[in-house]
Amino acid sequence: MTRLDRFVAALRELEVDGAYVSNLVNVRYLCGFTGSNGALFVPVDGEVRLLTDGRYLDQARSETDGVQIVITRELHRSAGDDMTPGRWAVETHDLSVDDHELVRAATDAQVELIQLPKVVEGMRVVKDDGEIDALRRACQISVEALEGLLTGPLEGRTEREVARDLEWRMLELGAEAIAFETILASGPNSAIPHHSPTDRVLQRGDLVKADFGARVDGYHADCTRTVVLGQADDWQREVHAAVQASQAAGVEALREGTPVPSVDEVARGVLDDAGWLENFTTGLGHGVGLEIHEDPFISHRHAGRLARCTTLTMEPGIYVPERGGVRIEDTVLVTSDDPEVLTPMTTDLLEIA
Amino acid sequence: MTRLDRFVAALRELEVDGAYVSNLVNVRYLCGFTGSNGALFVPVDGEVRLLTDGRYLDQARSETDGVQIVITRELHRSAGDDMTPGRWAVETHDLSVDDHELVRAATDAQVELIQLPKVVEGMRVVKDDGEIDALRRACQISVEALEGLLTGPLEGRTEREVARDLEWRMLELGAEAIAFETILASGPNSAIPHHSPTDRVLQRGDLVKADFGARVDGYHADCTRTVVLGQADDWQREVHAAVQASQAAGVEALREGTPVPSVDEVARGVLDDAGWLENFTTGLGHGVGLEIHEDPFISHRHAGRLARCTTLTMEPGIYVPERGGVRIEDTVLVTSDDPEVLTPMTTDLLEIA
Repeated sequence: MTRLDRFVAALRELEVDGAYVSNLVNVRYLCGFTGSNGALFVPVDGEVRLLTDGRYLDQARSETDGVQIVITRELHRSAGDDMTPGRWAVETHDLSVDDHELVRAATDAQVELIQLPKVVEGMRVVKDDGEIDALRRACQISVEALEGLLTGPLEGRTEREVARDLEWRMLELGAEAIAFETILASGPNSAIPHHSPTDRVLQRGDLVKADFGARVDGYHADCTRTVVLGQADDWQREVHAAVQASQAAGVEALREGTPVPSVDEVARGVLDDAGWLENFTTGLGHGVGLEIHEDPFISHRHAGRLARCTTLTMEPGIYVPERGGVRIEDTVLVTSDDPEVLTPMTTDLLEIA
Repeated sequence: MTRLDRFVAALRELEVDGAYVSNLVNVRYLCGFTGSNGALFVPVDGEVRLLTDGRYLDQARSETDGVQIVITRELHRSAGDDMTPGRWAVETHDLSVDDHELVRAATDAQVELIQLPKVVEGMRVVKDDGEIDALRRACQISVEALEGLLTGPLEGRTEREVARDLEWRMLELGAEAIAFETILASGPNSAIPHHSPTDRVLQRGDLVKADFGARVDGYHADCTRTVVLGQADDWQREVHAAVQASQAAGVEALREGTPVPSVDEVARGVLDDAGWLENFTTGLGHGVGLEIHEDPFISHRHAGRLARCTTLTMEPGIYVPERGGVRIEDTVLVTSDDPEVLTPMTTDLLEIA
């Protein structure tokens, strides 16, 4: 069954006449179209239409299969126009209030617009072989790039220079793009969870945190390592060891059937026992795939159990304002057996000469 | 008057009690905050609040001034909660239907939510000195990078390699990032307006189209040139000359007070006279600033007149499927006098050895 077939089956269960998929990532997932303007009109009975504008005609033809391509300047209006009397589901979590109004205004009075639950996002949680292969390659490139970077000197170079070097290595190794703007944070800046690289020069004694990833065929890798320039002091070792233990426990917990909140509990528990929990101010992990952040998100507030072939990050950290911080992050695949780390590289504290 | 003061003045004219600004680019424009999660709560009377989550506390403090910082996991709920009885404007062009519902559910019954027209987008059209400076630098870097690229050999390298080289040069010259994914299209691929670089090897006789730009302090440059490898043939010269004439006429028309549709008419007219209008399938130009595509968009369907200190692209093209295409694009500043091309580089057809 194609993804579109499975989606239509889900729509039948929802007892709707069809759906209008406006989220571009979902459009790509369902039909393969990667252009920057497009939407899918999916009747439960009838042909699926990809709505896009004239710029993307050739691309839409070459990227999709079994989908009728409709060129229009007004996607929302066209969709509303084509809805037959009945119940139609729209992505109210994505569609703006004004765009929803455009759909609404174009429909017949007998059309009822209802909320499409996150059906496509739900399908995207479990990756197929092709997706896992792309993620594996993206992760492999990321790790190789970091290993290459760490063979060279870092001291005396700016955060910006080092970040750019790392990105360049990923592209050289075959990434189609970087997955997100690289976080390269040194010394006191490492205490800032989401730090943009500056002109600060890396110095002996610095903690240096790199949070980065490659993108392959639209799939994102996400990896973080924190190293020390020169010899680590006791405080750096202590903080790093606590994060390492928490991260290892968190990775171990990423197993089929495990409730999401208990993954959160395990990894937080280690930080709590070590007395550092209040310095962990970010999220513990998130799904990763066609988006860098996607379902499932790991926290005590998210219900559900982990499914096989889900890819997630595990990224605890300790951040001590003005002093420094450590984060360790892997992209991990949930299997029917042990979790598979897709970013296999030591998590031991590396002291870089 | 600060941008926030001007915004509050505009809200008074709209006779609302305040506004909730959820679009991140607008948030950045109004208060300087560049994090990936945040929104502004702007009462007409009372203190402006920046809502964000714990990750961004330090960054919010250092980037903003005169704004109260509120840490919350639920921006929309917090905003709704804080609305006093009366009329509040929300960005219905940006806020999803579901998020709008979250705001709504948190408000008092005496709160009326109304549509905030594109007030902030309207303010952003006219750039101040700091913005023009950032755009000027981004454009300068872009042009220098392309000039550097064209001194080296292109023949025998892949589209991907050449695109990466161009991007690397922009970063080396001081870009904080690339403004968008580079379009590098060669030979028949140049006929595809929005082509992603492939492993196609550049060959003698190819048209090579590069559409690219640098980002500086959040501001985007946008530039396109199309060159020939080796000697141009007559057809390539003809097409290039038509685009060059159209582009020059379009740039000339970017003057204070000119109605937008007449800019469109002038540039299209040249393509029409040359007999190539039906091969021009994209937009003629768009505003450029904190976003790569922003108001004003140049077309016959957009009303309004050009204002001084607006930055726009001018980018006519001719695309002949399977044969090739030419686009020439500059980023241009509307002044009180002649238009200023911020990407000053010859638009003559360059033949690259």
